[in-house]
Amino acid sequence: MKDFDLSLENLEKLFPAELTPAQLAQAKTVFFKELSLQAHKFYQGKVQVLPKAGLFGFNWFNVWYTPGVSSVSTAIRDDNNSSFQLSNRGNTVAVVSDSTRVLGDGDCTPPGGLGVMEGKALLMKYLGGVDAFPLCINSRDEDGIPQAEKIIDFVKMLEPSCGAINLEDISQPNCYKVLDELQAACNIPVWHDDAQGTACVTMAGLFNALRLAEKDISQTKFVLMGAGASNTTIARLILAAGGDPQKLYVFDSKGGLHKERYDIAQKPEYYRKWELCTKTNPEKISNIEIALQDADVLIALSKPGPDTVKPSWIKKMAAKPIVFACANPVPEIYPYAAQEAGAFIVATGRGDFPNQVNNSLGFPGILKGALLVKAKRITDNMALAAAKALADFAAEKGLTTEYIIPNMEETAVFPKEAAEVAMQAIKEGVARTPLSFETVYNKAQSDINLAREQTRHLQKQGYIAKPPKKMLENALNKALQTVGKE
Amino acid sequence: MKDFDLSLENLEKLFPAELTPAQLAQAKTVFFKELSLQAHKFYQGKVQVLPKAGLFGFNWFNVWYTPGVSSVSTAIRDDNNSSFQLSNRGNTVAVVSDSTRVLGDGDCTPPGGLGVMEGKALLMKYLGGVDAFPLCINSRDEDGIPQAEKIIDFVKMLEPSCGAINLEDISQPNCYKVLDELQAACNIPVWHDDAQGTACVTMAGLFNALRLAEKDISQTKFVLMGAGASNTTIARLILAAGGDPQKLYVFDSKGGLHKERYDIAQKPEYYRKWELCTKTNPEKISNIEIALQDADVLIALSKPGPDTVKPSWIKKMAAKPIVFACANPVPEIYPYAAQEAGAFIVATGRGDFPNQVNNSLGFPGILKGALLVKAKRITDNMALAAAKALADFAAEKGLTTEYIIPNMEETAVFPKEAAEVAMQAIKEGVARTPLSFETVYNKAQSDINLAREQTRHLQKQGYIAKPPKKMLENALNKALQTVGKE
Repeated sequence: MKDFDLSLENLEKLFPAELTPAQLAQAKTVFFKELSLQAHKFYQGKVQVLPKAGLFGFNWFNVWYTPGVSSVSTAIRDDNNSSFQLSNRGNTVAVVSDSTRVLGDGDCTPPGGLGVMEGKALLMKYLGGVDAFPLCINSRDEDGIPQAEKIIDFVKMLEPSCGAINLEDISQPNCYKVLDELQAACNIPVWHDDAQGTACVTMAGLFNALRLAEKDISQTKFVLMGAGASNTTIARLILAAGGDPQKLYVFDSKGGLHKERYDIAQKPEYYRKWELCTKTNPEKISNIEIALQDADVLIALSKPGPDTVKPSWIKKMAAKPIVFACANPVPEIYPYAAQEAGAFIVATGRGDFPNQVNNSLGFPGILKGALLVKAKRITDNMALAAAKALADFAAEKGLTTEYIIPNMEETAVFPKEAAEVAMQAIKEGVARTPLSFETVYNKAQSDINLAREQTRHLQKQGYIAKPPKKMLENALNKALQTVGKE
Repeated sequence: MKDFDLSLENLEKLFPAELTPAQLAQAKTVFFKELSLQAHKFYQGKVQVLPKAGLFGFNWFNVWYTPGVSSVSTAIRDDNNSSFQLSNRGNTVAVVSDSTRVLGDGDCTPPGGLGVMEGKALLMKYLGGVDAFPLCINSRDEDGIPQAEKIIDFVKMLEPSCGAINLEDISQPNCYKVLDELQAACNIPVWHDDAQGTACVTMAGLFNALRLAEKDISQTKFVLMGAGASNTTIARLILAAGGDPQKLYVFDSKGGLHKERYDIAQKPEYYRKWELCTKTNPEKISNIEIALQDADVLIALSKPGPDTVKPSWIKKMAAKPIVFACANPVPEIYPYAAQEAGAFIVATGRGDFPNQVNNSLGFPGILKGALLVKAKRITDNMALAAAKALADFAAEKGLTTEYIIPNMEETAVFPKEAAEVAMQAIKEGVARTPLSFETVYNKAQSDINLAREQTRHLQKQGYIAKPPKKMLENALNKALQTVGKE
């Protein structure tokens, strides 16, 4: 057994050099999944609650609890807005899912999304300095059918405790209704990470991919594969950013969206898709291979691959084809295969390939910015402001076909993103507390630093234990077995 | 200005010696309330979310989030019970309130309870090693009337994310319906701290007060003033512990509970009170002064004093009268006044007097014990087991009339309480995971130690800042002004 570095930075080197790219990708997936299962058992969860206020002696309980806290209860009662200042509310996000469409695994039953939502809470704090709690809720009626109304009621009831809501992994069509009704009903941002979040980060990558390929967005032919919450929002943002609806083609599992898709027209809950049917795909193309002829950009957010997108399709695209294959956990086509077929730039949802279109680049900074100015909502233009901040950050560092978007280690991007989002919120009149760019930037930066330093210290002191080496070795063995290289 | 010790241990010495006991008590209340308001502004909340799992490098995000976490989603999907092991669920409590009856301040509007619920979360971690998140929810219908049904729906939806629910500060009569329906519907403990929690700690104090006064519970005459969630539960536990219903008298704001209280009989939602009407107060006494004639114990959980209980009443009680005056933030009668009137033992809800009947002695240990054996509910006998653990702990240390119950600094009591509660859960068949007394005790102990050490460490490193001295001085000045001793 080779030497394990707990940082996992040397991971690639632990696999035999003779593995094909497909085998290596598969082996890494197995490794992460096996390690994940064992590590979750070891830690029994990923986040904890700790004090952020001083406890200098037991008399402080009379300050933090009865009788002292009474002044806080009555102050908030007399001015509800003071709750943002006198409690955690101003820095708190609830991550709410009904676990009906968990990250590539579909319906996982209500508690099945806990691992993902906790992961989100972990990222929220570590990258954005935001406190989040993971709530996987049961939205089923008596017949076991998930009900949009139930999620809506739940979040409306929850609003007084949070500065923002992060909706997550809710299946279609409920996700649209839930998002739209809650955005209209709530006085705090309701962020749907699968929609605006994925769209924001995809747009960031897209802006830079177009720069590198020297394509103008208004002249670019787009094919979107998959018409879920993410791709329908990406389509909306492409148009908002200057894309031409006549050059935009969106496909769902039944074919192209266009004016004659009566199956969609008949279902009022699919109005977002219907909007795209009426605006795009003027030729009513229903075959994706035909649409891809001379297309500049393919954005797939469809079913996990690796054979969902065929190399032959990419061969038919225009010069310098740009391919986003973002299904999780396995992209619709592996990057090496797309490149062999001629792709100029390939992006995926995975962190072990270049150009990760990773929601984690978006939501921590966006929510932090929205929270700091106490925004009432997060508009599409705020999401686009975040996308531009991400794109510009990478561009300043120097773009290459393997670097069109910052990676998660470039944490300096988050305060910038937060500040740009906050400025856009102020511009659009949705901020309760206008602050300067510098103020937002500095506060975001210091909160993020504090989160990371606290984490580092808890690890250094051994309060967060190290997993046994054996756990990593077992995961590696399992991965090697899978590809027959034990 | 005298020298401030940030621990507040020298607090009494900062007030002029010539203050009367009533003035001193009032001044301390003002001090805690003013400091609380300023300190809440300073920290902007009391709890934060931090990682409890290792982040040894950015590749670990592939373990904690996609693609690795997929194995956790599917494992929980295939066996929902694994969610207690693979996520935070097993150590997580949601503190849920609709803020309609916040600690002595009544209806504080939905966000108005945040200060209290966060305080509860802080105590839960610091004393019990339990992770809790504070949820103040809007239970109002369109006419602004709080609806029990809405709280019930909310908690049912929330169940998949938690190991237990702590209901808090819900007004009557909704609190009864909410508790009973949720306890029947949920497969995790639904703890109503105002009911079982207060009752548990009161019973602990009562057991030792009776020991000191050499009174046998079956021969003891009890008068309960107030018939809210706490006192009706205390009445039930007194009977469960061997009290004689013929010697038990419960009063609400309209007089004594008895068979002819048709106003209560008519309201099905007050069935808990009606049960007491049918069982107790055989003479149908409707005047509390008359009932107190020769009574051994008065337990007041009524409206804040200090004049709610008259000294003249206490003078009429039997020898060695035991007085629990537990309204918050000001007891129904101040201890010195009750003692002047002849009280043998006085207990209050306040931490700045001896014999604090403090819920914080109960819920952290009880919930920890219930969580560790994955109990499905918390029975009255589990609450009584906790009460006995608390009483025995104090008795071992040596009882006096000013020490009938442990105080919060005696943190060694919590693991014992947890273990006793867990053993009772196993005995009654409500534990999913039977464990030995020792196993529960040791795990509770180590989790509590970890919580406290992490907190200490964050303070020591300056990650939790010290408030400016000026803040304490200002609070003291305001307190002195109030009693005219500026």
